[in-house]
Amino acid sequence: MPRLMFSVDEDEAARFGPPILQACRAAGVEAEPCGPDHPPEQVDYVVLSPAGPVRDFSRFTRLSAALSLWAGVERLVGNRTLAAPLCRMVDPGLTEGMTEYVAGHALRYHLGLDAVLAAQDGDWRPELVPPLARERPVGVLGLGALGAACAAALSRLGFRVCGWSRRPRKIDGIDCRHGEVGLGEVLRRAEILVTLLPETPATENLLDATRLALLPPGARLINPGRGTLIDDEALLAALDTGALAHATLDVFRNEPLPPGHRFWSHPRITVTPHIAAATRPATAAPVIAENIRRAEAGLELLHLVDRDAGY
Amino acid sequence: MPRLMFSVDEDEAARFGPPILQACRAAGVEAEPCGPDHPPEQVDYVVLSPAGPVRDFSRFTRLSAALSLWAGVERLVGNRTLAAPLCRMVDPGLTEGMTEYVAGHALRYHLGLDAVLAAQDGDWRPELVPPLARERPVGVLGLGALGAACAAALSRLGFRVCGWSRRPRKIDGIDCRHGEVGLGEVLRRAEILVTLLPETPATENLLDATRLALLPPGARLINPGRGTLIDDEALLAALDTGALAHATLDVFRNEPLPPGHRFWSHPRITVTPHIAAATRPATAAPVIAENIRRAEAGLELLHLVDRDAGY
Repeated sequence: MPRLMFSVDEDEAARFGPPILQACRAAGVEAEPCGPDHPPEQVDYVVLSPAGPVRDFSRFTRLSAALSLWAGVERLVGNRTLAAPLCRMVDPGLTEGMTEYVAGHALRYHLGLDAVLAAQDGDWRPELVPPLARERPVGVLGLGALGAACAAALSRLGFRVCGWSRRPRKIDGIDCRHGEVGLGEVLRRAEILVTLLPETPATENLLDATRLALLPPGARLINPGRGTLIDDEALLAALDTGALAHATLDVFRNEPLPPGHRFWSHPRITVTPHIAAATRPATAAPVIAENIRRAEAGLELLHLVDRDAGY
Repeated sequence: MPRLMFSVDEDEAARFGPPILQACRAAGVEAEPCGPDHPPEQVDYVVLSPAGPVRDFSRFTRLSAALSLWAGVERLVGNRTLAAPLCRMVDPGLTEGMTEYVAGHALRYHLGLDAVLAAQDGDWRPELVPPLARERPVGVLGLGALGAACAAALSRLGFRVCGWSRRPRKIDGIDCRHGEVGLGEVLRRAEILVTLLPETPATENLLDATRLALLPPGARLINPGRGTLIDDEALLAALDTGALAHATLDVFRNEPLPPGHRFWSHPRITVTPHIAAATRPATAAPVIAENIRRAEAGLELLHLVDRDAGY
C-alpha cells in the first residue's frame, strides 16, 4: 500500500486530504496517509504546497512523485533537495475558475461597469453604451492551459483576441504571436491585457516601463498570473499619468499583500486576494489520484514539470 | 450629390452622424449632410429617431427614403405627414450587445464583483473565492433571438442554464421549460434570473410578488427585457426584505427613469439607462449607408416598414 504524505498547511490538509484519499479509492488505489513526521524513507508520494512544513526532501529516497496542489511551482522547482518527478496541478476547476475571473473582469472593463455602478445619481446617461466586443482588441500573454482557455472564452464572447507565447502556438480563433517582435505587436493593440505567464527568470518584470508604454492610451490590465510579471513601480507610474486607465491585480510579489501597500489605496487599481485560480478540492483531488494511479501502474505522469523551463 | 438630413437628438447626431457619412463613403455614395433647418424640399434622405426635431414632413417632397435609427418604429408609423418609404433599423450588433451585457452582469453577480470592488481596505480576504459557474443555476425567461443567444452564451461560460418560454423550445445545452409549471421550476432554482420576454398583455407583471417569492433566497435579477415584466412594488418589497439580494434594471415603465424614482437610490438596485440593446454606430451606420446606396442605384430597400402591419 503506497504511503502518501501531505506537506501542506493546516487549512489545505483539512480541505484537500479527505477528498484526495477518497479520489484515490475511486481510482482503485488504496493509499495510506501519513503526517509530516513520518519517516521520509518510507514515503511514496508527497502532495505539497509551498506553505507546507517539509522544506528538505533529501531523505525522501523512495518518492515516486511529488504532486503540487498548485499550478505555480516556481518555489518547488528551486528546491534542489526535491529530485523526484514533480507534477503541477492542472485542475479542470482551476481553468474554469480562471476563465470565469478573466471573462468577468474583461467584461467589467469592456462594459464600463465601474462607471455604470457609480452612475446611480438619477442622471440618465445613454452615452454609457459600450462598443461591441468585436471592436475591442484584447491581448493574452501566455498561452498555456490557463491562457489558452481564457483566450478561447474571450473569443467566444466576441472579443478580438491576440495571444502571445514564447514559442509559436496555433489556437483556433486566436491571432497568435510569439517572440519579442510578436510581444510588441500584441501590446500595441491590447485595450485590455491579460497576463497569464509562468514565473521564470525570462518573465520577471516582462512588463517594464518600456513595454507598458506600448499599450494603447487608456488600456486596462488584468494580472491573475504572477506578481513578478510586472514592474510594480512602472505600473504605478503608468497609472498615475493615466497612460494606463486601470489594473486588476490578483497576484503579488508578497502575499498576502501588506495592508499599507500602495496598490490597496490606488484609485486605479483593484486588488483581489489571489482568488482567480484557487485550486478547488472537488476538481483537484481526482487529478492527484489519477497521477498516483498512473505511477503505481508504471504509466507516464500527467503535468510533469520541466525543471529546466521552470514550469 | 444626395442631401442627407439628421432629424435626431444632439447626442445621436454626435454619435451617429460621422460614422454614417463615413459608411456612405465606404459604400461609394458621397452624401451631403444638412441640418434640420435646411430647406426640406431639397432633402433626399432623412435619418430619424422619435426624439428628432422634425415632426412635420409634409414639405419633404423630394425624400427617397426615411431611415430610422431604431428598431421600434411605432411612433414614426403613426406620423401621417411622412409618406416616403420608411426603413427600420435591424442592427446585427444588437444581439451581440445584449449578450455581452447579460454575460457581464451575470459574471458580476457570480464573482461577487461589487463585494470585491468594495474590499479595497487592505484586508486580505481569501473567502472571496466564488463557486464555479457549473455550480451556479441561472434562469433565462424568454427564448427568442435575444434570450436564446444569452442562454447559449451563459451556458458556454459554464453556468447551469434553465430557460423558459411560453411554448416548448429545444436549445442545445439549455434545460428548457415552458408553461406555468415550467415557470415555477425555473424560478425555484435560478440564483441569477435574466428576463428577456417581449411586452404583451400576458407578460405584464409576470414577476409579481408570488412568483418573485419562488426564487431562492438571495437571488439576483437582471432585466434588460421590458419594464412591464416586473411588478415594481413587489420588486422593491422583495429587495427590502433581502429575499432578493440585488436587481440590475435596464428598462422601465417610463424612460428616462425620472430622477426622483426609488430605483435610483435603492442600495440593492443598479439602474442602467436602456443600454443593453442600443443601436450602435459601428454596426448601424453600414445599414443606413447600404439603404442609401440601394436607393441611389434604384434597388429595393432593406427592412422596409409595412405601415399597415406597423413594423
